[in-house]
Amino acid sequence: MSVLPRSVEKVIDEFGKLPGVGPKTAARMAYHYLRSPNHDAEKLSDALRDMDLNVSFCEKCFNVSDKKVCDICSSPMRKKSKICVVEEPLDVVAFENSAVYDGLYFVLGGVISPAEGIGAEDLRFKDLKKRVKELLKDLGRKNLEIIIATNPSLEGEASASYINDMFANEVKERRIVITRLAMGLPTGADLEYADRLTLKRALEGRRSI
Amino acid sequence: MSVLPRSVEKVIDEFGKLPGVGPKTAARMAYHYLRSPNHDAEKLSDALRDMDLNVSFCEKCFNVSDKKVCDICSSPMRKKSKICVVEEPLDVVAFENSAVYDGLYFVLGGVISPAEGIGAEDLRFKDLKKRVKELLKDLGRKNLEIIIATNPSLEGEASASYINDMFANEVKERRIVITRLAMGLPTGADLEYADRLTLKRALEGRRSI
Repeated sequence: MSVLPRSVEKVIDEFGKLPGVGPKTAARMAYHYLRSPNHDAEKLSDALRDMDLNVSFCEKCFNVSDKKVCDICSSPMRKKSKICVVEEPLDVVAFENSAVYDGLYFVLGGVISPAEGIGAEDLRFKDLKKRVKELLKDLGRKNLEIIIATNPSLEGEASASYINDMFANEVKERRIVITRLAMGLPTGADLEYADRLTLKRALEGRRSI
Repeated sequence: MSVLPRSVEKVIDEFGKLPGVGPKTAARMAYHYLRSPNHDAEKLSDALRDMDLNVSFCEKCFNVSDKKVCDICSSPMRKKSKICVVEEPLDVVAFENSAVYDGLYFVLGGVISPAEGIGAEDLRFKDLKKRVKELLKDLGRKNLEIIIATNPSLEGEASASYINDMFANEVKERRIVITRLAMGLPTGADLEYADRLTLKRALEGRRSI
């Protein structure tokens, strides 16, 4: 005799597949939907199905999109001479929400991480190469700037140097300029609590005022 | 121009309704399903729909069940002379998994919490009264034990004394015995880190060995 109905067990199992969600949290989540009086379970069910059917990846930048080419890639307002390489779609959201960037994006889909068994072949480096070629063709004699915006982690750094190596020729020929987001102290940070590497980077990157 | 497709925003909104899930976590969850290669979104969607359609509450104990009367309430193996009153269905799972109890359950659906605006009328006290009457009738001249197993919190205690008051007459007539789970140090606890109230309860409840 099982304590829980099969269909509840199944919802718990499915929630348990989420990263960072253990069996207890998954059970709490399932119970939330069981108790919810507003048909939240049905709403989430519909929303997931709708997303599953309608949302895919932009074929140019691989950001999530419900179109073949996303709004950013197809916008005439965005500068085609800058492409910002990020790890995840959420990084695009972060940039867009802060409205500090007017170029294009490219979503790698992660970072090289030998520890997690993610090699270069699991990420979209080939697609990046193709996209960059396409942009270079469109730009004619103008330069393309690749802004590497992977996270300042070991894996992010490894992926950044992989991209750097990938376009070594184009950089030599001055067709491409590769930049990396500045590292240093975040706004509002307390210097006292900054870690060694952040302080090192903040010192290295110091500028005259 | 919105950064995210509508259907992704909707999934994020729905996940954001879960207790303790903020917008960032909700977004991470939605992205997990976007990237998942195994149709996890569809699986969760189906599981939720199935649960929404098939699972309800046992009409006797109000535990979740896919039957009108749950397996525990309808089992001839369970002692009808004990009813354990818990806050949530997950508490039943905890008891059942530890296999330390062979009586019936009753799920209150929460605890009295003025801070959260939950009064006695929002919980299943009336149903408990009805269920207890039913059991007393079935038991004939035998006693019924109500084991109060609400959490050892302020709200749990308030609900416990509410139940106590509710059956004051039956207790006086010795038809009902009301007990409360013992409080004290949990197994494996470090006395050094026990809070004052736990130590107080552990002292009060001390037994000769």
